Amino acid sequence: MDKVKVALWGFGAMGSGVARVLLQKEGVEITGVCDIHPQRVGRSIFDVLGIDQGERKDVIIEDSIDKATLIKPALCILATDSFTKKAFPKICQLIEKGINVISTAEQMSYPRAQEPELADKMDRLAKEHGVTVLGTGINPGLMMDLLAICLSGCMTDVEHVTCKRVNSLSPFGPAVMEEQGVGLTVDRFNKGCADGTLAGHVGFAESVGMISEALGWNLTAFEQQMKPIVTTVDRKAPYGYAKAGDVAGVNMTGQGWVDGQLKIDMIHPQQIEPEMEGTHTGDYITLLGTPTVNMQIKPEVDGGIGTIAMCVNMIPHVINATAGLKTMLDLPVPRAIMGDMRNLIIH
Amino acid sequence: MDKVKVALWGFGAMGSGVARVLLQKEGVEITGVCDIHPQRVGRSIFDVLGIDQGERKDVIIEDSIDKATLIKPALCILATDSFTKKAFPKICQLIEKGINVISTAEQMSYPRAQEPELADKMDRLAKEHGVTVLGTGINPGLMMDLLAICLSGCMTDVEHVTCKRVNSLSPFGPAVMEEQGVGLTVDRFNKGCADGTLAGHVGFAESVGMISEALGWNLTAFEQQMKPIVTTVDRKAPYGYAKAGDVAGVNMTGQGWVDGQLKIDMIHPQQIEPEMEGTHTGDYITLLGTPTVNMQIKPEVDGGIGTIAMCVNMIPHVINATAGLKTMLDLPVPRAIMGDMRNLIIH
Repeated sequence: MDKVKVALWGFGAMGSGVARVLLQKEGVEITGVCDIHPQRVGRSIFDVLGIDQGERKDVIIEDSIDKATLIKPALCILATDSFTKKAFPKICQLIEKGINVISTAEQMSYPRAQEPELADKMDRLAKEHGVTVLGTGINPGLMMDLLAICLSGCMTDVEHVTCKRVNSLSPFGPAVMEEQGVGLTVDRFNKGCADGTLAGHVGFAESVGMISEALGWNLTAFEQQMKPIVTTVDRKAPYGYAKAGDVAGVNMTGQGWVDGQLKIDMIHPQQIEPEMEGTHTGDYITLLGTPTVNMQIKPEVDGGIGTIAMCVNMIPHVINATAGLKTMLDLPVPRAIMGDMRNLIIH
Repeated sequence: MDKVKVALWGFGAMGSGVARVLLQKEGVEITGVCDIHPQRVGRSIFDVLGIDQGERKDVIIEDSIDKATLIKPALCILATDSFTKKAFPKICQLIEKGINVISTAEQMSYPRAQEPELADKMDRLAKEHGVTVLGTGINPGLMMDLLAICLSGCMTDVEHVTCKRVNSLSPFGPAVMEEQGVGLTVDRFNKGCADGTLAGHVGFAESVGMISEALGWNLTAFEQQMKPIVTTVDRKAPYGYAKAGDVAGVNMTGQGWVDGQLKIDMIHPQQIEPEMEGTHTGDYITLLGTPTVNMQIKPEVDGGIGTIAMCVNMIPHVINATAGLKTMLDLPVPRAIMGDMRNLIIH
């Protein structure tokens, strides 16, 4: 049986990370890569990754998805955007080629939350072309939504959900430092929030939407807030620096109301070098109800490798699924793939 | 649209607990109950449960499943056995009536582990009759298998899995005290292990089988051990008593080997009044790999209510599934049902 053919669209931190993992897995091969970065176009992925090509066929990074899918893959991992609106035309292109899609765009994890019309369009188009589309990642995708939902499976009654993810931005590069406002003065941070240039965490609306749908709660309101985490000491990370009095990161909070009652709390402070002021990273879920469930994972599950893993590990589930736009709610539980990926494909 | 019709086979602690929960849920009704206990046969379930019947139709406990399914249910929850061999003929009867089945039998959570032939038979028969069969519960079913598997979804590599569940037997009744050897002398406990009259926890082979299949590991050996937890103080629970020097519970351990390497460790000490000697209950999962994931839930998720919840919450997933014998690996993640169950049925 042929190896599972996977194409990658986007070869930045996520796309190239996915490639590194796929190259270590059995029964799967990368058949094409599309990326528009001038420093990458035309180069071999093995050269860009610094990995020995060995017995493998070479894969040259193309600047068009048409060229990157000349060998038709079963699935393409699209790692180019955070927002559904920007990923949408690319997803449609892939669907029309009859290729299953996994998107890393945070909003695509539950696109009905903010782009219900685009979600309907993708669902219809995917069904027409007999392919499956899924958005996933570590968060949204697992730590602040699917994991809470899975734990609620042992409850007969849920009164309130709190998902808290305390993480460190220190491992991330300059793009993330900029998006999250690391090193800004409080004034400039607040200006950035007001004019929309600071994104903060993208995904609360999606996580809250997914949790409400899963539990059968009728979400009537959603809000989120974004506050600076002001450091009292100088903090230095490989790609970020915040001096005392400036912004070391962002504290995102979000709330979901069901029929006027606050039912879902999302708490997600992210900053460089949190330990310098006594903050320890971790993922925490508290489900109040019957029985109450108190979960913690310490330290936090790293967001970069976590998202890469989720994308790789969901490949067989997406290929096996019925056609249409799916969320993590619709598919079997994610799981690490330690064997041959071909064994997981249902024929 | 009609309510989802559910029958119950077995009206002991589990079956009656499921009934209590179903009676509080929207969009579902209990259409029949079968139980052979002489104190229950012929009585109204509302009388047995001590719950006001209200506007609901009465349900009389029947001593035959034929009578209890005269109104054909969409699904029957079978809560009568721990072992596949004993549940098997009942499951076949239900399948032949065209009724979907959820079994609480621990071995049914992954029947291929110990009864591969019966598993094949059930799968074939279920496909012939177009129905779905699932075994589930809190453990096996979630805490020492599916939850670990779900967490592995954020990993690119898993080296070793440890699932540890430290629980209290104090809430359980006389049957559990007897099965687990609570109050026995160490000699009598060891005799009970040797002659098979003490069951201990049933489910390690199933959990280990499920984890290996999920990760794509080729399980080459499985072992388990059962040791007495000897108390140094007198311990008293509502239905159990262990004097100092006697057995307060059982420490179950199990191991799964993959190609000669120890890859899965199961640790499950259960005893009455664990706090009296400084043991605190909890569920712990450690997945060594990339990244390592360290999860804890404290206190433990109560096994009784947890199993009841899993059975109720999986009803829509089982009704929606394609025909055949399924495990928790095949279906979408469990989730608490807080809305109308009819909204979860896909037509």
